[in-house]
Amino acid sequence: MPEPAFVELTLFDDPARRGEPADEGPLQRIRMTVAYDGSEFRGFASNAGVVTVGGTIEAALERLVGRPVPVTCAGRTDAGVHARGQVVSFDIPVGRATTERLAASLSRLCGPAIAVRDLEVAPEGFDARASATGRLYRYQVLASPTPDPLLRHVAWHVIEPLDLSLLRLACDPLIGEHDFSSFCRMPKPRTRPPGAPPVSLVRRVRDARWEEGPDGVLWFWIEANAFCHQMVRSIVGTLVEVGAGRRRPGDLLGVMRARDRAAAGQLAPPQGLTLWQVHY
Amino acid sequence: MPEPAFVELTLFDDPARRGEPADEGPLQRIRMTVAYDGSEFRGFASNAGVVTVGGTIEAALERLVGRPVPVTCAGRTDAGVHARGQVVSFDIPVGRATTERLAASLSRLCGPAIAVRDLEVAPEGFDARASATGRLYRYQVLASPTPDPLLRHVAWHVIEPLDLSLLRLACDPLIGEHDFSSFCRMPKPRTRPPGAPPVSLVRRVRDARWEEGPDGVLWFWIEANAFCHQMVRSIVGTLVEVGAGRRRPGDLLGVMRARDRAAAGQLAPPQGLTLWQVHY
Repeated sequence: MPEPAFVELTLFDDPARRGEPADEGPLQRIRMTVAYDGSEFRGFASNAGVVTVGGTIEAALERLVGRPVPVTCAGRTDAGVHARGQVVSFDIPVGRATTERLAASLSRLCGPAIAVRDLEVAPEGFDARASATGRLYRYQVLASPTPDPLLRHVAWHVIEPLDLSLLRLACDPLIGEHDFSSFCRMPKPRTRPPGAPPVSLVRRVRDARWEEGPDGVLWFWIEANAFCHQMVRSIVGTLVEVGAGRRRPGDLLGVMRARDRAAAGQLAPPQGLTLWQVHY
Repeated sequence: MPEPAFVELTLFDDPARRGEPADEGPLQRIRMTVAYDGSEFRGFASNAGVVTVGGTIEAALERLVGRPVPVTCAGRTDAGVHARGQVVSFDIPVGRATTERLAASLSRLCGPAIAVRDLEVAPEGFDARASATGRLYRYQVLASPTPDPLLRHVAWHVIEPLDLSLLRLACDPLIGEHDFSSFCRMPKPRTRPPGAPPVSLVRRVRDARWEEGPDGVLWFWIEANAFCHQMVRSIVGTLVEVGAGRRRPGDLLGVMRARDRAAAGQLAPPQGLTLWQVHY
């Protein structure tokens, strides 16, 4: 029996249309919210030869629709970075499945490390990336003399004690519209066409705050209209140096003004970061 | 170079004694607290041919001490069950290493899925299992229409909504001294010597309560002098049937009085369970 486990996963709800070419007819735009365990993937963006979140979703869609279906995401998370509310958009042929059935089929085909939390038909022109007006990330730090094996894939273990009041003081200057060049990995030159305008690394941070979670974990929440590459992890790496007493809280302003990646602290590791929610 | 990574891990602090047989001289009893990610192990108890927590610790100790070192634990967790405060006791030769160094060496040799949280010389006669006066377990449930990939190794995902007030009502009768036969897997007859007295499944539950954790998770905390095999998971499986409306809260008393495993609900899966703390 060829692939019996997937017999029920076909998109073709109408038995009379089963087996028809799937690329006929008009398309509809789908908006899907997914959660994933980033430790199982080499980031979101599809990339030949490695397992990525986007590549896994696209492979599942191709299996269901019968031809390649490119997806767009709100935040291109790096390898090891997780998501609780990543939003993805793509097009599929109109009327071939209910949204409930499509969500269930994709969830099963993508495996246990990706979960479809919501799936609906989106308004025309909706684009998971371009339409997003805000992104909320959470970074989890475990400040403890000993590691916690259950948190090793979801938190940054910092051995030094961290002073929460210093962490809070330090993150206040981040709020507002700033040039975040000091906290961003610059786009690779080869990916930019010659003569393109300079890349703006100005972002508007709406909220940035530290919260105490259960069992000694600290949560850093940051919300902005958009983020540059590695921005949250660079900020967290710098803030943790303040919390550990190796930098003064006031340094953050100087780091921002320097517009120089070398002014910021170390890059916090990816596993502490989760794309929590996207606003439209 | 043979095994360069472990050169610093030898127990022999005194260079003059390096290379001496390690089983000479008096022994001292060690009390060690460990946390572990149970999803990487086939339970605690050493078992030939499978990777267990106890087997991993014993292999590390044998490597350090130069001969087999059996360990005793406070709670023999099943495959997939985690620990935050498991306590282990064992004997090592006196004066061969500082406790700090022994803890660091064991942590490294055991790998990232086991962490040594504390290690000290114990009073004579201390036994991690026999000396324990209480054990506290936490069971984590995610009641949500969709799974959370980041919690799949640490929580039981229940699709049905659970009524917290029903869960709370149902667990009250557990507190006190009761015969928990209905919630226990009976010891295998072949492990009991002929003519041995009947096994008592009477346990004293000091506390049992439900708490709301972050992001929609529910925590069931239960503390008792000791637990029978699979007792927490059988209790949680039965309580969740109450929370889902498939049993009445008052049924718990009847289940306990039945002294029959068939009266209880399904066994909750192992990954939600963590041995949180042991009291002495």
